[in-house]
Amino acid sequence: MPRWADQIFSDKIDALFKEHRYRQFAEIERLEKQHPHAIWHGGDTPQPIINWCSNDYLGMGQSTIVSAAMAAGISEGAGAGGTRNISGNSHALMELESELANLHGKQRALVFSSGYVANEASLSTLIKLIDGVKVFSDASNHASMISGIRHSKADKVIFKHNDARDLERLLAAEPADRPKLIVFESVYSMEGDIAPLAELVAVAEKYDALTYCDEVHAVGLYGDQGGGISQALGIADRIDIIQGTLGKAFGVMGGYITASDPICDVIRSYASGFIFTTALPPAIARGALASIRHLRQSQNERQGQQRQTRRLKTKLTAAGFHIHPGNSHIVPVMIGDASLCRAISDRLLQQHGMYIQPINYPTVAKGTERLRLTPGPYHTDVMIDSLVAGLSETVTSLDAEHILAVRHRAC
Amino acid sequence: MPRWADQIFSDKIDALFKEHRYRQFAEIERLEKQHPHAIWHGGDTPQPIINWCSNDYLGMGQSTIVSAAMAAGISEGAGAGGTRNISGNSHALMELESELANLHGKQRALVFSSGYVANEASLSTLIKLIDGVKVFSDASNHASMISGIRHSKADKVIFKHNDARDLERLLAAEPADRPKLIVFESVYSMEGDIAPLAELVAVAEKYDALTYCDEVHAVGLYGDQGGGISQALGIADRIDIIQGTLGKAFGVMGGYITASDPICDVIRSYASGFIFTTALPPAIARGALASIRHLRQSQNERQGQQRQTRRLKTKLTAAGFHIHPGNSHIVPVMIGDASLCRAISDRLLQQHGMYIQPINYPTVAKGTERLRLTPGPYHTDVMIDSLVAGLSETVTSLDAEHILAVRHRAC
Repeated sequence: MPRWADQIFSDKIDALFKEHRYRQFAEIERLEKQHPHAIWHGGDTPQPIINWCSNDYLGMGQSTIVSAAMAAGISEGAGAGGTRNISGNSHALMELESELANLHGKQRALVFSSGYVANEASLSTLIKLIDGVKVFSDASNHASMISGIRHSKADKVIFKHNDARDLERLLAAEPADRPKLIVFESVYSMEGDIAPLAELVAVAEKYDALTYCDEVHAVGLYGDQGGGISQALGIADRIDIIQGTLGKAFGVMGGYITASDPICDVIRSYASGFIFTTALPPAIARGALASIRHLRQSQNERQGQQRQTRRLKTKLTAAGFHIHPGNSHIVPVMIGDASLCRAISDRLLQQHGMYIQPINYPTVAKGTERLRLTPGPYHTDVMIDSLVAGLSETVTSLDAEHILAVRHRAC
Repeated sequence: MPRWADQIFSDKIDALFKEHRYRQFAEIERLEKQHPHAIWHGGDTPQPIINWCSNDYLGMGQSTIVSAAMAAGISEGAGAGGTRNISGNSHALMELESELANLHGKQRALVFSSGYVANEASLSTLIKLIDGVKVFSDASNHASMISGIRHSKADKVIFKHNDARDLERLLAAEPADRPKLIVFESVYSMEGDIAPLAELVAVAEKYDALTYCDEVHAVGLYGDQGGGISQALGIADRIDIIQGTLGKAFGVMGGYITASDPICDVIRSYASGFIFTTALPPAIARGALASIRHLRQSQNERQGQQRQTRRLKTKLTAAGFHIHPGNSHIVPVMIGDASLCRAISDRLLQQHGMYIQPINYPTVAKGTERLRLTPGPYHTDVMIDSLVAGLSETVTSLDAEHILAVRHRAC
């Protein structure tokens, strides 16, 4: 490597250490059918832990239903062997897309390598196809949506997080005949709050705007068939593009959009990130399909998760912790300092065998550092009690009781 | 959907039909351990076919070694359950990255959702981190590399395809102390030609430039352990970043880069497309790991593929077909017209049970439309003879003998 390059890259890494932003990945080994039990490979010897920060929200990633379907699907190929256009368009993927369209009550669906790619490719492509479009983007939108909007070089404006009135103010300022696209999420991952979808949709309709809603933290989890917040509210037909993931509540991997036939067809036909990439393996499609079909008819996982989330929130609040307000299954415990957040996480893992990754800047704003907990149906009452006790012990032993007393900036 | 949007999207689809660019995906079902045999689901009834255009170049996607490892890996989770930073950093992925670094003789490797994401995320991130860098990009680079370079907004210049002298001319025109990055592939997918890597690297060293080489169509296939063209030539240590895929010769899915520790660490730490996305499932990592380990010690697949490629090229040439010149395993049969290319492909599939996707604009330049064949070790001599006979019959029945007589633009 040229010496100039070595110097630049070393400096960039040093900067992260100085700002306490250098990420250390915890090496985790999942255990067959034992979620949330796992093994941590970071100490002197492998150590059993309870995973409290997985996005395998309902434990479907270790469900026999999913693993059996995925294992059977391997017979159709470990990989797809090509792009969707060149030999990779498997029968399994076609079935999966049909199921997804059906789940959301849409004409068609398109599956991508990931939710990130689904957002980036779909948004950048849609925006480039609409001459003169103005994009209205929620202030807390995910990096993948921001990336898609940025790469399209669109004229865009940010509306206040979850604020339909601010959105309306901005929409009203544009000419009535200018094409408009509104981009938002239904559940925000780091805050755990739920968007006022009905209000946003009403405003969009008033101003004749196209709507794009990311439901990655909602699909599988909300609605009587797991179709997300839009399904729970009965307004999926009033949102033009619903985007989701197969890698969180559905427990596998991949992302998707579902929409009308013309919208899916233009993205299928014009999106570089969809066209020029290897398709998802048939085994992944089979696993995801089994998971979706199960969660469309079973309420057990959703009810179990909601029950344990309520219990965890109640217990944490009683112990004095501040939880970022929100009605979702995500429980952000506010810490407010990057070093302390890391120290609490480290002690929980090493002393208590509880794994909660610290969430620091730039994922959240400085001063709003937090531990993000994702209780699921397989976190037992005993685990919840142990977690609250472990957190309390850790706060005491680190002389950090002030986080219990202060009112946190974001709360 | 707003009416204005419906109109725009319908018009964009109509435009594709008018330009003969509308892509019809052939729905293909792979058959357990029977590659290249498959089932086509596009006719009145499912029909057995031979797949001649798969990028599962060595049939590893249906190897028992890979499928058994992948099936066993499902016990570690159907999905990763999180990003690399938040609970998704599996033991299996760490082993895979270690194996990849070892394969290419580098300090470290990073695995991404796909080869497309590996290129886009790595290039856009590297370029943004190097103030004032000038990018030198081969004229035939893949869409994912172009996308990564574009999104970085770098100052860039295109050098003539595989032309080290043109590259040197452009390098010499820049100030000696300006940071420079050269981006190229080792095997070009649609031409099937191999880059003059030794010459490109020598020029890069002379001008103290950083080098990035995409080996997605070479890993597994070239070099005595499948480390690609850079391994075959013994110059992997002189290329700074080698990018590859797990979804073609290795038969599974995912992409990667391998490089020095500082380069991998900055990309790991700064690339949005790496950080904010769900990690690859442990099962995928286990399947890929088994495939790489097998192809590091077995020469059978590579030798079989090279033998059948030579045979196919000889037979096609004897039958009068024009093959785009190149020394790789990819065999582009030149047609030179979009409608004819589609018609030949359709007849081959429907009448002869041979699947070769037509390659038209914008994947290749207008006037250079082609059928891209990828013979592998499991394409038998009999299959090759049948293919050449089927192609000849098709050309005759479509009154297209002129494609045999003319000298094609790109040849």
